Amino acid sequence: MTADAQDASAPSQELVADVFARACSSRAAFEVVTGKWASLVLLALVEGPHRFGELRRHVEGVSEKMLSQALHSLEREGLVARTDHGTVPPRVDYALTPLGADIATRLRGVADLLQGAVPDLDRSRAEYDSEGARVE
Amino acid sequence: MTADAQDASAPSQELVADVFARACSSRAAFEVVTGKWASLVLLALVEGPHRFGELRRHVEGVSEKMLSQALHSLEREGLVARTDHGTVPPRVDYALTPLGADIATRLRGVADLLQGAVPDLDRSRAEYDSEGARVE
Repeated sequence: MTADAQDASAPSQELVADVFARACSSRAAFEVVTGKWASLVLLALVEGPHRFGELRRHVEGVSEKMLSQALHSLEREGLVARTDHGTVPPRVDYALTPLGADIATRLRGVADLLQGAVPDLDRSRAEYDSEGARVE
Repeated sequence: MTADAQDASAPSQELVADVFARACSSRAAFEVVTGKWASLVLLALVEGPHRFGELRRHVEGVSEKMLSQALHSLEREGLVARTDHGTVPPRVDYALTPLGADIATRLRGVADLLQGAVPDLDRSRAEYDSEGARVE
């Protein structure tokens, strides 16, 4: 932060993005990338570009409609790019943009931690559920 | 992978956690940590333990009911610990467990990237919306 920037008349807090603020673009984007299906689509695309049908098989349980909505929302944020190769039969690929790849790599880190913690997760759930009567 | 591991009679894939598999504990945990409110609660707790009321103010827009549900689901996975100090008036804190802190730090990285990309996000959305007629 230079002296010039501090002297600017506009209050600097106007320029600060905050994921906790409902009105901030970053909050809306955070809700997109943590979406139930969009988050798994990002993880799948870390492994490389996929066609629609490939994504449907990769992300277990996603419906055609939900996958389509997830891809549209990720495209809208500029995190996934759709490429129509203009061939017959049609070939359309979905791939991460550079920003999408940065986000997806970090989400993949979250998934890796959870995959490595399955015994701990299972133990914690069993303990919590056995103590269920305590709280209510 | 050692020769011994390859020779083991149990198929190794039985032991591999996979966030894409509906039946895997890691998938359920991934859905919890990417939940609409749970994800923001994790981000808030990166900054330190919070009381319930503090979390409600920190995470703009969360209702009492949604915050309570998010905290219960995070406790159940062993990612957040609830401490009742047993005092009068009651004081109850919520804090990240070590695994919760690892997860939350990575999610904070996602949020930081998005906060830094607000101009790009806004530009991408405007372009996407202006091309809306193209697709439908």
